[in-house]
Amino acid sequence: MITRLAVVGTGLIGASVGLAARQAGIASVAGYDPDADALATAVARGAVDEQAGSLEEALTNADLALVAAPVTAVPAQVAAALRASGDRCTVTDVGSTKGAVCRAAAGERRFIGGHPVCGSEARGPAHANPDLFRGATWFLTPVATTDPERYRSLHGFVAALGALPVAVDPDAHDRLVALTSHLPHALANLLLNQAGVSRVDGHEPLAAAGGSLRDITRVAGANPRVWVDIFLDNAEPLGAALAEHRRRVEQLEAALADGDAGWLARWIAEAAGNRRRLLAEAYPDPGDLQRLRVHVPDRPGVLAGITQALGAERINIEDFELQHLSPERGGTLTLLVSGVDEASRAAALLDAHGYGVVVSPVLDE
Amino acid sequence: MITRLAVVGTGLIGASVGLAARQAGIASVAGYDPDADALATAVARGAVDEQAGSLEEALTNADLALVAAPVTAVPAQVAAALRASGDRCTVTDVGSTKGAVCRAAAGERRFIGGHPVCGSEARGPAHANPDLFRGATWFLTPVATTDPERYRSLHGFVAALGALPVAVDPDAHDRLVALTSHLPHALANLLLNQAGVSRVDGHEPLAAAGGSLRDITRVAGANPRVWVDIFLDNAEPLGAALAEHRRRVEQLEAALADGDAGWLARWIAEAAGNRRRLLAEAYPDPGDLQRLRVHVPDRPGVLAGITQALGAERINIEDFELQHLSPERGGTLTLLVSGVDEASRAAALLDAHGYGVVVSPVLDE
Repeated sequence: MITRLAVVGTGLIGASVGLAARQAGIASVAGYDPDADALATAVARGAVDEQAGSLEEALTNADLALVAAPVTAVPAQVAAALRASGDRCTVTDVGSTKGAVCRAAAGERRFIGGHPVCGSEARGPAHANPDLFRGATWFLTPVATTDPERYRSLHGFVAALGALPVAVDPDAHDRLVALTSHLPHALANLLLNQAGVSRVDGHEPLAAAGGSLRDITRVAGANPRVWVDIFLDNAEPLGAALAEHRRRVEQLEAALADGDAGWLARWIAEAAGNRRRLLAEAYPDPGDLQRLRVHVPDRPGVLAGITQALGAERINIEDFELQHLSPERGGTLTLLVSGVDEASRAAALLDAHGYGVVVSPVLDE
Repeated sequence: MITRLAVVGTGLIGASVGLAARQAGIASVAGYDPDADALATAVARGAVDEQAGSLEEALTNADLALVAAPVTAVPAQVAAALRASGDRCTVTDVGSTKGAVCRAAAGERRFIGGHPVCGSEARGPAHANPDLFRGATWFLTPVATTDPERYRSLHGFVAALGALPVAVDPDAHDRLVALTSHLPHALANLLLNQAGVSRVDGHEPLAAAGGSLRDITRVAGANPRVWVDIFLDNAEPLGAALAEHRRRVEQLEAALADGDAGWLARWIAEAAGNRRRLLAEAYPDPGDLQRLRVHVPDRPGVLAGITQALGAERINIEDFELQHLSPERGGTLTLLVSGVDEASRAAALLDAHGYGVVVSPVLDE
């Protein structure tokens, strides 16, 4: 039973865990951060109720030590936390890679690696938020030497914060995030830099790009200070994923050079199937999803008017997106609705409000 | 002056041009489609007021013939339209590549290639929409032999439909769309198929993926019937873009293998700069943009409640996105607001409604 938590590193994640833990009824949260300002802010935000002057002080009588240091500092901080605490204390971390830290703590039955998947856009305890982990996957990496009782306890703690604990082998975790997070991130940067460097016959590709390049490169260029470390820390699995990606690009180049329509059709169909499986995580029946696209003027009240009208008719919106184009060009509103009938009702309603609607199935196989 | 338009091919694009042209005051719109159902639907939708039994009939006395055939049929259809029409008639098309059709019509001063960039999710005249082109880039590809008077007239026609005409060399157009549309599309498919085929230690990467992979692969697997032709039609420029992409992937692999933090930092900074330039197309000052992220429950009325509250306080929302996670996990609401003060006001308002908000700058350099 965890009644006393020690947060080591009170940045955005550490302070958010503190807030969420207190909301979940953890009796006391001690905090330590070598950056006195970060610690003071976490205290002021109510994320920490015992401000410790040292790692040792923070860990005194702690049931759980959560190390939330920058990714390169995690293995050393975890080792220090293990040394500075006794048998009572389980140690975990929130680093975005797990191989290195688990190797550093090898054989230590009190350590279990962790990684909440909750975005990394904001930084610092001033943005701490007890809801940060609600609905988020929180990887845990117990190994053969892990004490099962401690694992169960940490699992319960993570679930109490609103997250979904998922157990995975540490090295498999790193391959998994290489594929689902670091590779997409790298491709967004690569794509944007390729489009950004070229001028085509005097035309700036980025100016001609529009919404789809904007969607696909949403994560590009984010947080250099954080991402250099993440990429380097997971260099080997990411390198393997990039090499495999290159092989796949070569296959596509060959199919294009050969004019192989059959290969392309199978390749797109495979992507459509994978997209269906991806969407099935969020929607019970992705095949039913209909997309409504509307052009709207850049005018106050448009958003509220549309959502009120749809809400009044009890139309169930799955996804809702308003993307700004420019003051002159207005914006594009995209709605996802489940079922052809629901889509027709929504389209008729928007039509009655003077918006022309294009409806299409999300999965078009 | 265009008073009589002939639409050759009355699918989604052709029928939408018909509707938009009639809205813009074009006196008559003749239509022809070898598919009698498509033509009948376009007539029923009011997109066409003169149903022609043949290409020749449609082109009689036309000032402008707009060829909206499937991409592989465009060069032959354009040639046929040029043969079947007299000096009065300017011919244009709406195909997504321009090199082949312009070569096929080489030296023909009555032809000017065109390409409205307006998405291709829906198909068929039943979804026709006069607002489809509003705010969209509409590439036009006049060449040395083009009659300047006809170009001015077509430019005016396209602008009257609400689109933004942009003149570009035909081959440059194809390199441009290879970079800004076909390459991103291909990478989305490649990424999804790589993540979809692998199982990592019993874990399904697509299940572990979450929102960022969903964003980045939004266009994946779309319309195999349309996209096989688009890829093949633009195989050479796309192949060149893919080869250049592979070289860039190799550079990244080398930097990772060398642990070259400096290279990675410069590479991310370059992507951040490019992202800023991309956003500058839509927002006057992208550096001012703040992102607000909120977890919301899956409950009717949430969307209308939030937009009403923000609207009542006159908070100016640039982008607004509600992404569904699952009935149990609710959804993620992301707002883009311009300026730190506006973001604070929005955050305070959402906080008062019981939503914990994480605020971060969109560009974080």
